[in-house]
Amino acid sequence: MAVRNIKLTIAYDGSQYHGWQIQPGRRTIQGILSEAIQNLIGSEVRVTGASRTDAGVSALGQVGLMQIDSGVPAENLAGAITDRLPVDIAVTEAVEVPAGFDVISAVKEKLYRYTIFTGPVRPVLQIRHCWHLPAKLDIEAMNAAAAMLVGKKDFKSFASAADKRETSVRTIFRCDVTSCDERVYIDVVGDGFLYNMVRNIVGTLVEIGRGKLSAEKIDKIIVARDRTAAGPIAPASGLTLCWIKY
Amino acid sequence: MAVRNIKLTIAYDGSQYHGWQIQPGRRTIQGILSEAIQNLIGSEVRVTGASRTDAGVSALGQVGLMQIDSGVPAENLAGAITDRLPVDIAVTEAVEVPAGFDVISAVKEKLYRYTIFTGPVRPVLQIRHCWHLPAKLDIEAMNAAAAMLVGKKDFKSFASAADKRETSVRTIFRCDVTSCDERVYIDVVGDGFLYNMVRNIVGTLVEIGRGKLSAEKIDKIIVARDRTAAGPIAPASGLTLCWIKY
Repeated sequence: MAVRNIKLTIAYDGSQYHGWQIQPGRRTIQGILSEAIQNLIGSEVRVTGASRTDAGVSALGQVGLMQIDSGVPAENLAGAITDRLPVDIAVTEAVEVPAGFDVISAVKEKLYRYTIFTGPVRPVLQIRHCWHLPAKLDIEAMNAAAAMLVGKKDFKSFASAADKRETSVRTIFRCDVTSCDERVYIDVVGDGFLYNMVRNIVGTLVEIGRGKLSAEKIDKIIVARDRTAAGPIAPASGLTLCWIKY
Repeated sequence: MAVRNIKLTIAYDGSQYHGWQIQPGRRTIQGILSEAIQNLIGSEVRVTGASRTDAGVSALGQVGLMQIDSGVPAENLAGAITDRLPVDIAVTEAVEVPAGFDVISAVKEKLYRYTIFTGPVRPVLQIRHCWHLPAKLDIEAMNAAAAMLVGKKDFKSFASAADKRETSVRTIFRCDVTSCDERVYIDVVGDGFLYNMVRNIVGTLVEIGRGKLSAEKIDKIIVARDRTAAGPIAPASGLTLCWIKY
């Protein structure tokens, strides 16, 4: 049977996993997912992910690619794989894609959403999917700063030192801060993100929201190309990879 | 210093615990909470709970009672205890109550909410706080049956065989089934509940919602005073203890 390329859309609660990336002896999304698929089709499989989400980061629309030589129809794959997964991971779609499809370099846009809970009482039922920060945030100032991040820029100041990629230039298409009741959402759409970039952006916007940094400083932070110029990193628990467009 | 009676309101995500009740060698809400308070005040404490929630059941308004001889002002206790708790437990209120206050027998009303997610895609971020049942439920039929449960009745048919309490007569003040998008909520307010009673009621209402049982059968099930007359038990994950009134 000819080898088929299958693109998977994957949702998971990242709180109980050591991130996406397979690691010996650790429970990871990539590891558990690849195992479940091997159990289903009976041969070795490795799912390549579009984003290496960190420990504690969740996803509603991670995308993975795999090669299989099984004849299972694509429309039955999502359900059959999900049946073999723990309850906090699901394959929500499986479609066949042409040979040569590159799940990483073909990405056009990704949306990450960061959720902050600003109320005084610890939100125990959502605590693994937010940052509990009981503080008054100036949404207007945060939005003014967020707008200055939009465009094709060098985001080196927002990249973890561990990022080894060649260029730190990325395009942010949209960066919005909205609030609803005791929640603040920071949505960032970009063509790609450096290591820890969204969490470093969020940490910086929160400094601005708390009045510790003025919104106008964002331009200087960008120009500095220095991680220490930006704010502290925000916790992983607040971050969700919502979708990826190709 | 005189011993003080302190009433605590407690919220928790029950998914990572072996229920409320302290058990040797197991991680329980009562155990972890009592330990945190001991660390704070430096002497042995046991918190008595109003409801022994099962493994996997969550709470927004569990109530506990403790005796302490510490001088910490009641208004500072909730925050100080919460600071010493894991992120998925919080004490949301602490107030002094008179000697002789009985946290179990003084209960007037409790609200339990059960959440069912009926959509086809596994809701990974809420999976520990719902029952994922991708099915069409007849809400009208469920409500007709729910209305027949209201009143002072013998609920033996809905009690687990493990329930050893003297009488199985309880009063249900309200039992409503509502739906919103892909969620169905079953709210039950009563003066007290037998072991597994809410989950057995939910399991029975779901049989009715799926058309496997007619709503009119509820009266016969009640009269039977026999657990096997009612429907199967619903999973613990969907159940939340919302509040307790005294």
